[in-house]
Amino acid sequence: MNPVYLIGAGNVAWHLGRAFLRSGVPVGGVWSRHTAHARELARDLDCPVIAALSALPAGPGLALIVVPDQAIGGVAAELLATAGQDLTVAHTSGATRLDVLGEKTGQTGVFYPLQTFTRGHDTPMEQVPFLLHSGEEAVMTQLETYARKLSRHVLRVTDEDRAYVHLAAVMLNNFVHHIGHQALRILADRQLDKHLLQPLLAETTRKLMQYPPGDIQTGPAKRGDLRTIEAHLTMLADYPDLCSLYRHLSQSINPKLPL
Amino acid sequence: MNPVYLIGAGNVAWHLGRAFLRSGVPVGGVWSRHTAHARELARDLDCPVIAALSALPAGPGLALIVVPDQAIGGVAAELLATAGQDLTVAHTSGATRLDVLGEKTGQTGVFYPLQTFTRGHDTPMEQVPFLLHSGEEAVMTQLETYARKLSRHVLRVTDEDRAYVHLAAVMLNNFVHHIGHQALRILADRQLDKHLLQPLLAETTRKLMQYPPGDIQTGPAKRGDLRTIEAHLTMLADYPDLCSLYRHLSQSINPKLPL
Repeated sequence: MNPVYLIGAGNVAWHLGRAFLRSGVPVGGVWSRHTAHARELARDLDCPVIAALSALPAGPGLALIVVPDQAIGGVAAELLATAGQDLTVAHTSGATRLDVLGEKTGQTGVFYPLQTFTRGHDTPMEQVPFLLHSGEEAVMTQLETYARKLSRHVLRVTDEDRAYVHLAAVMLNNFVHHIGHQALRILADRQLDKHLLQPLLAETTRKLMQYPPGDIQTGPAKRGDLRTIEAHLTMLADYPDLCSLYRHLSQSINPKLPL
Repeated sequence: MNPVYLIGAGNVAWHLGRAFLRSGVPVGGVWSRHTAHARELARDLDCPVIAALSALPAGPGLALIVVPDQAIGGVAAELLATAGQDLTVAHTSGATRLDVLGEKTGQTGVFYPLQTFTRGHDTPMEQVPFLLHSGEEAVMTQLETYARKLSRHVLRVTDEDRAYVHLAAVMLNNFVHHIGHQALRILADRQLDKHLLQPLLAETTRKLMQYPPGDIQTGPAKRGDLRTIEAHLTMLADYPDLCSLYRHLSQSINPKLPL
């Protein structure tokens, strides 16, 4: 297997690098604008630091650009200016179009892992969906070979569909986390153990995936139970931010509510 | 073990009845205002139908009132008017105070299972927290004996704390379900498999319980990334309800956002 180069040394680079090594794919080196970060990740992965984007080894391989979205274009331009024709360059962003990588369409692609990663906590990568895209079948096949080393869940998704998947993922991850955070905060303020809500959360997410979602919604908003809603809003008097959130979400669940 | 009587024949009655039987606690009978429902559940549980609230067998036992919140007081009054002194009467509601059951405090309590139940799908009851309350220690002990037959997770919680737990549970279950529903709807509209989001959802909920929640929030709202937020709002142009929800939740995550 040809090597992977990590262009970026953050959270996603850490996870992909470790997962490639576990799967027997060599990591040929790490580059980062912050040399200290590159050095740290290179030490973790036992691979070389790449000192400059113009200094990637010649020969075939996959350079994965894992930098913040707004930096992808600049890094790609610099990298592709000197890279050999055998190097494929892909970014790992959900929200960024393929053409940000420039015009060398025979060398460029998207390699997007649909997951939230926490540095220091290994994620079971074989369950992570990898959404791939390229304008060229040869690149696509190559990206698939790498992705299948990591995951059982590899699929081809266009720029536009990937953007919507990313949007849905932001909603699911960030918004669900926020709601959960607020619910746990109410418990914490009363010195109640947050794990009280663990079985409910597990069942909520199980049902979400198992049943047609609209059909199984329950609760005061859905059944138009204004008495309970008013009682909840009164209880939330000390949490003005939560009052507003509660009201808005209840109204979104049941637009007929006179809130 | 003295028998349990189910006063109500809905979803929660179905689950508690089945769980009691599995745990070897006899179900002495089922009452419902709708005789057909009582008959159906009694058939499922292989126990008698109780024809009237005044017709409960004499002798010790636990009558669990599992009817809609606003009906609990009336049912309790009718039941306690003729019930023997050996019968304990408890409701199973998170949002209802103990004193709705009337003045016979030596016979009344709260027996609240903190879970969302789906009829026809058995929930592992041994993981469900049971929140108990009573004004009398003897009743409390009795409720604990019944609850421990069902679950490893039994605790004493006051009316006020239980109301806040119920509020947090409504937020966690109803609001998370709603967010999830909207995210899956975006995928469905693009003919994408909803299971794409399954690993992300699992990791989101795992992290929520494992880490201090505020610390690990990520995403465009948290980092004030207006470019991505504006792109998402543009993509949601065909979903005016989602636009509003997205805007409100982003603002709630990061109150400094100029949305």
